[in-house]
Amino acid sequence: WMGVPVLGLDALSSAAYGPEAAMTVLLVAGTAGQALITPIMLGVIALLLVLYASYRQTIRAYPQGGGSYTVARTNLGVNAGLLAAAALVLDYVMNVAVGISAGVGALVSALPVLLPLRPELCLLLLLVIAVVNLRGVRDSGVAFMLPTVLFVLLLLGVIVAGVLQVVLTGGHPVPVVAPQAGAASAAVGLSAWLIVRAFSAGCTAMTGIEAVSNGVGSFRAPAVRNARLALTFIVGLLGVLLAGIAFLARAYGVTATDPASPEYRSVLTTLIAAVTGTGPVYAVSVAAILAVLCLSANTSFAGLPRVAKLLADDDYLPHGFASRGPRLVYTWGVVSLTLLAALLLVVFGGVTDRLVPLFAIGAFLAFTLSQLGMVGHWRRLRQRGLPLVLNAFGAAASGVTLLVVLASKFTEGAWVTLLIVPGLVLAFRATHRHYRHVQAEITTEHPLDFTPRPAPIVIVPVQAWTTVTRKALRFARQLGDVRAVHVLTEQDGHDLQDRWAACVTGPAAASGAPAPTLVLLESPYRQLLEPLLDYVHAVEQDCPDRQVVVLVPELVGPRLTHSLLHNARSAVLKARLSFGGDRRVVVMQVPWSLDDTQGRGRAPR
Amino acid sequence: WMGVPVLGLDALSSAAYGPEAAMTVLLVAGTAGQALITPIMLGVIALLLVLYASYRQTIRAYPQGGGSYTVARTNLGVNAGLLAAAALVLDYVMNVAVGISAGVGALVSALPVLLPLRPELCLLLLLVIAVVNLRGVRDSGVAFMLPTVLFVLLLLGVIVAGVLQVVLTGGHPVPVVAPQAGAASAAVGLSAWLIVRAFSAGCTAMTGIEAVSNGVGSFRAPAVRNARLALTFIVGLLGVLLAGIAFLARAYGVTATDPASPEYRSVLTTLIAAVTGTGPVYAVSVAAILAVLCLSANTSFAGLPRVAKLLADDDYLPHGFASRGPRLVYTWGVVSLTLLAALLLVVFGGVTDRLVPLFAIGAFLAFTLSQLGMVGHWRRLRQRGLPLVLNAFGAAASGVTLLVVLASKFTEGAWVTLLIVPGLVLAFRATHRHYRHVQAEITTEHPLDFTPRPAPIVIVPVQAWTTVTRKALRFARQLGDVRAVHVLTEQDGHDLQDRWAACVTGPAAASGAPAPTLVLLESPYRQLLEPLLDYVHAVEQDCPDRQVVVLVPELVGPRLTHSLLHNARSAVLKARLSFGGDRRVVVMQVPWSLDDTQGRGRAPR
Ligand SMILES: [K+]
Ligand SMILES: [K+]
Ligand SMILES: [K+]
Ligand SMILES: [K+]
Ligand SMILES: [K+]
Ligand SMILES: [K+]
Repeated sequence: WMGVPVLGLDALSSAAYGPEAAMTVLLVAGTAGQALITPIMLGVIALLLVLYASYRQTIRAYPQGGGSYTVARTNLGVNAGLLAAAALVLDYVMNVAVGISAGVGALVSALPVLLPLRPELCLLLLLVIAVVNLRGVRDSGVAFMLPTVLFVLLLLGVIVAGVLQVVLTGGHPVPVVAPQAGAASAAVGLSAWLIVRAFSAGCTAMTGIEAVSNGVGSFRAPAVRNARLALTFIVGLLGVLLAGIAFLARAYGVTATDPASPEYRSVLTTLIAAVTGTGPVYAVSVAAILAVLCLSANTSFAGLPRVAKLLADDDYLPHGFASRGPRLVYTWGVVSLTLLAALLLVVFGGVTDRLVPLFAIGAFLAFTLSQLGMVGHWRRLRQRGLPLVLNAFGAAASGVTLLVVLASKFTEGAWVTLLIVPGLVLAFRATHRHYRHVQAEITTEHPLDFTPRPAPIVIVPVQAWTTVTRKALRFARQLGDVRAVHVLTEQDGHDLQDRWAACVTGPAAASGAPAPTLVLLESPYRQLLEPLLDYVHAVEQDCPDRQVVVLVPELVGPRLTHSLLHNARSAVLKARLSFGGDRRVVVMQVPWSLDDTQGRGRAPR
Repeated sequence: WMGVPVLGLDALSSAAYGPEAAMTVLLVAGTAGQALITPIMLGVIALLLVLYASYRQTIRAYPQGGGSYTVARTNLGVNAGLLAAAALVLDYVMNVAVGISAGVGALVSALPVLLPLRPELCLLLLLVIAVVNLRGVRDSGVAFMLPTVLFVLLLLGVIVAGVLQVVLTGGHPVPVVAPQAGAASAAVGLSAWLIVRAFSAGCTAMTGIEAVSNGVGSFRAPAVRNARLALTFIVGLLGVLLAGIAFLARAYGVTATDPASPEYRSVLTTLIAAVTGTGPVYAVSVAAILAVLCLSANTSFAGLPRVAKLLADDDYLPHGFASRGPRLVYTWGVVSLTLLAALLLVVFGGVTDRLVPLFAIGAFLAFTLSQLGMVGHWRRLRQRGLPLVLNAFGAAASGVTLLVVLASKFTEGAWVTLLIVPGLVLAFRATHRHYRHVQAEITTEHPLDFTPRPAPIVIVPVQAWTTVTRKALRFARQLGDVRAVHVLTEQDGHDLQDRWAACVTGPAAASGAPAPTLVLLESPYRQLLEPLLDYVHAVEQDCPDRQVVVLVPELVGPRLTHSLLHNARSAVLKARLSFGGDRRVVVMQVPWSLDDTQGRGRAPR
């Protein structure tokens, strides 16, 4: 049962913005328009049931978890897989943007003084979520469970209380806190077109129901049966929430408000205030809504990097997406998702309503390809029974919905998806082509060359006699002929030259080993890098047959600030040596740590 | 004379926002308030002349260029120098933010459809300027000269034409394009306080006049005389522009407009439209204003990195600020400036008026410390004549102005400077302490250790037999005992194992050299990194007395995209090995280039 809150989160949270998205479209048609919310939500629930039947089949067919990319790629081929991947990328990014903007929408509805700060609050929340994910989150079920359970129980409580009120007052409940008067005059009449557009917006209420089918593997045995039960439960709950919200909004006269105006109040918070007043229940509800929407946005931070890793494994995205960083986080995936979501939040000013078209298209394109993939799956297995029919029906329903959303929201931003989705697919293919091309180029038949070569020349920049210098020089002696290079600036006190005799030339003579050469370079203007680079290039010219190694110390350790304070010069040195494609000079970064200088590192090693 | 446009740019461009800043403050006092712009601008011009006299002395005393930091640090000690540096950082950042926001203000005044996009346009311009600077700009005098000359000539022309009109019409010129009616009713009465606040805002018109004294070194001999001539010329021009704008604004009834409202129109563009209409002169003027303000913002991209380099040389900022990247750009300085300016533009919504208080304080704090430093300079030299008096007067005047600005704008954002400036000084000192501390820690008396050590173990990850692998293995053989590590994933075709016999073991036996060991590691889930890391750590455990080197290929070359596509894995490998402070494993990145695979690299090397 732990799976229900974690995997249901994404779907259930959609109740916080789906109905509102439809009601906002109906706003222009005044009171008559708002009356339509109930039939439109019933339509959405009907489509939800079709998708439910479809995803039950996916769960059975892919007990290890069947994401859109896997299902489409396996059953429909590479191109469909890439299209599904592009749709998923869009879906995941929009899920973050919509979740955060709707959460902030609930917050500013409760605290209207914060309304002018909406874009800033969105970016702040995004930053918090991104940082949490970059530091690595262990799936802590409880943190996810509590807000979800609270959200569902509170909403169910409000719905039950509201319905009771409606019944007791004979259909005319008195709101505890009256909703803002709005949408009184009809700017435009009702039309079939308006209804279609409202339905399209309302379809965002279904986003996230695919989560259970992605995570079948995390259920206890019998996993398929348990996953199907969980899906039934989640879809049932979501249906009740959607129907309840639509019914009560009508009964209490709650309407949408202009999402971009300073009078904006979210439908759900207004509804809760109308039923329960703005007391503690209201405060806890707003907090639960905000928390659930943030956690729902957070699910993308697990989902998108996982899809990106699959694509990178197949050379369709840079390999950086396939590697986990020190905290076992797919850093590239998390950072890309954050940047893309931030871009969307900035461009659309953190207003949920403007983000909805892109979200619906991303989600329904992924739904459609996933269901089509299932149709392909059953055909491949030559099973022509009910599952095939259900998935075909699901594919048709979500495909038609996709076209409806695309057409009805085209001028409101949906046209952008016609650039983004094919653009992503082309980028995947271009990346793949590049990797293939390079692979072909570097493939060789030549055997390893065992002819002897002279020892490398090892250049060690030395500004003072320190434990770090000692360690670097000792290692350098193992690699080849050492040249210690010291850049003399105007401030130089010639301390190093004195030490060199005592600490290097003296001991070398005593031990009979050759002493490393000390090279002194003059530098005006306190530039340390330029004289060193000139020297390296001169050595390279003089000794064309020898490998040149530049050995620079690099501070390692857990503190990023220390690394920034101490490693910039060696990083720049490396960048400047590689710039222009110099392939002869190898830069070797010898790690040292601040502990080296305290504990054991103190003793000579 | 080339120096005038380049060094005068920063000062002259201030005419585009200084008068407007004062007029915006007067807005609340209605028509009576707008009448005060002339006396206030005369006060600003008087202060400008005091600073002019002061900076003439600086030019003479510091013919190599005397920035606030240098002058304050040399004459008043380290703490004053750090305070001046903090003031300069604030000044430079604000100069970028104000220049860009005022430029965009002029643009959206001419094209009001763009008004809702003001923050986005600001960020876009900032990005363009930052990218240009990151790619490295050679000081191209002409690109700077043309817009500045155009700006000055057009403004002078408009002023002459306007004054003629005023004279010809007996003081009642008819605007060609009537300014928006505004500021008709006085919300609050006139008060001394309001006048002080307007004067404070108007002081931004003086920002940038220190540029000539920073750049004395760039003048032809006699440099001091030429620099002083240039300063006289620039200050004279700026005075004429300020006086002319103030006079004509009164005569034509041009008032400021609410800077945050959709009716915002900049004073200067409104004035030009009133005098010349919105014909070609107007269009060229707006373009020139935008260009000059962007170029003026651009001057900070040379100035801030230069100050940061001085601070980093003295260990007050991370050494990264002292190193120039591949394009000879102080990358850290440019990037920091961009991020700080972007932050300010986002927080203040790209509205110039909100940025003005911070700008005035940064500039006048720098002025004051610079003049105080000059007072110290003359006292040190025991010269007690006119220069001392002039600088003392300049210091007093700018110090009083600073206090006036701080007090009068305190609640409008100036309080932030009381956090930023001391915060920066503390950060400088903390950085310095850290470097001193580490320097003391790593200083050693121990001589270099010449006792022999066993050869290092060199681990080379190998996924396929390529030219890159060959090069890496050949180099690895020179360094120590080679272990080639191959991670077997489910997709592995065992191609490498076949090749290994033909390309390594065979030739090794033929040449009598020892063959590198091939280590095979199993990996589920296509993770390449984890098995490799486990192996490295195991080797480290097994051979505690030997240095472990991990040799990974790194693509070098001019194309960043190629580097992103090919170097992520080795970067992550390095990060994960250093994470936790492992000091025994050295990661060595062997450069290769895509040319290697085409031209000469094809042949065995
Ligand atoms: K969601
Ligand atoms: K969702
Ligand atoms: K989703
Ligand atoms: K300026
Ligand atoms: K300026
Ligand atoms: K400046």
